[in-house]
Amino acid sequence: MIGPGKAELLERIDDTGSIAAAGREMGMSYKRAWMLVETMNDMFRDPVVVSSRGGATGGGATVTDMGFAVLKEYRALERLTRNSGKPHVQKLQSLLTDMSEEK
Amino acid sequence: MIGPGKAELLERIDDTGSIAAAGREMGMSYKRAWMLVETMNDMFRDPVVVSSRGGATGGGATVTDMGFAVLKEYRALERLTRNSGKPHVQKLQSLLTDMSEEK
Repeated sequence: MIGPGKAELLERIDDTGSIAAAGREMGMSYKRAWMLVETMNDMFRDPVVVSSRGGATGGGATVTDMGFAVLKEYRALERLTRNSGKPHVQKLQSLLTDMSEEK
Repeated sequence: MIGPGKAELLERIDDTGSIAAAGREMGMSYKRAWMLVETMNDMFRDPVVVSSRGGATGGGATVTDMGFAVLKEYRALERLTRNSGKPHVQKLQSLLTDMSEEK
């Protein structure tokens, strides 16, 4: 439903106030950034981004309360799985071939 | 390094005693199953699967202690991230559009 890319896009929209600028920072086409926003806006009960095109201020995009709620849960999930999984990831890494020992 | 596919392959090799049979159960070509095993064998400090081709018993494959150690850590990691992440996943799901309410 939401992954690293969409979460980063939301954060960058919040930073830049612009869907196009946020996408650009991520090397995404304008069209792709808009599509991702539309996908998220349809996916959640309320839009995660509202935008106005043109006008005196040249339009802009704002992350909504719903957007921030989604972001908050997603980042919490990410942090948690990273922290609680750490001992197992470290154990697995210790089992990997040590490249410096490679014959 | 190891994901759901490789973990399942290891478990099925343990069940069937055969790389080919394990791959077949997963809809994988013989070649792909062998390649995944070789990748894992190179990746870890010791082989995760040892195999003999032909011979009186028609050959076979065995998951090694290293293989079981890797599997154990991987499954523990999976369980843990699933359990600890559950409240956040549920919260995110509660924010999703309810399809049954779709206009």
